[in-house]
Amino acid sequence: MDELSIKLVIASWKQVVSRLDQRLAPLDDEQLQKQIAPDRNRLFYLLGHLTAVHDRMLPLLSIGQRLYPELDEVYIANPDRSLADPLSAADLKTAWGEVNTTLISAVEKFSADDWLKKHAAVSEEDFAKEPTRNRLAVFLSRTNHVSFHAGQVVLVK
Amino acid sequence: MDELSIKLVIASWKQVVSRLDQRLAPLDDEQLQKQIAPDRNRLFYLLGHLTAVHDRMLPLLSIGQRLYPELDEVYIANPDRSLADPLSAADLKTAWGEVNTTLISAVEKFSADDWLKKHAAVSEEDFAKEPTRNRLAVFLSRTNHVSFHAGQVVLVK
Repeated sequence: MDELSIKLVIASWKQVVSRLDQRLAPLDDEQLQKQIAPDRNRLFYLLGHLTAVHDRMLPLLSIGQRLYPELDEVYIANPDRSLADPLSAADLKTAWGEVNTTLISAVEKFSADDWLKKHAAVSEEDFAKEPTRNRLAVFLSRTNHVSFHAGQVVLVK
Repeated sequence: MDELSIKLVIASWKQVVSRLDQRLAPLDDEQLQKQIAPDRNRLFYLLGHLTAVHDRMLPLLSIGQRLYPELDEVYIANPDRSLADPLSAADLKTAWGEVNTTLISAVEKFSADDWLKKHAAVSEEDFAKEPTRNRLAVFLSRTNHVSFHAGQVVLVK
């Protein structure tokens, strides 16, 4: 990928994440307990879910080890309100910021070739057959994922 | 942009649109009148909104003239339920399919250089200063946009 396109792909991610941040950052613990719609996920759950999913991108993109693997059980493996939140709102916000900073600092150093390397969840053999299973594919998919949930977060008044 | 990356960018768009289609296609006129949350947009409005926004991409990406410019007044310039829906559910679904097919057929023919050409809403002069204001930027931004609203559509039971 050329430098300009890489810049745009990263800018697209940053824009979605920063809009979400602007929405969530001012909210306190009580406000984060609000649900996006009746019987639907709390904002708190969505923030935990996105933090866990972005944290999983660290090994997936071969950036490094996970920072908060303990979030998966609560925010990926189980639906909202089935398990207690393991972190306070303040700590979850810190985790969210830390995961995203680690991720973005690393991808900003990716070379054009790095983007087209296989992601960690595909074998060399399968990747040889399907070169689309690369880091760029993961990054585009997760950009859509965060945007999907951002559309839900804005519904809270 | 290399061919593989272009393929991934287009696949990312297609995945979001097709998931939304799977959700909306089986719904009849009455079901499309449901709101995504109390006091929020109807599914019908969101479908009109997305059709109008994607239709605007045709001239913006220099693909061709608009197919449904009459949708803007109802689904972009005004909030939901302020004006009557100009099309039936069946006709709106047809419009949505037609706009997306026209768009995708055209971008699939874009060369690597085409993606980096300026979009139609920026002047040559401004584009010379900001080469990021290209077709790829528009396409990534609209992929996020449709994903944002897809996150809302799934809330309807």
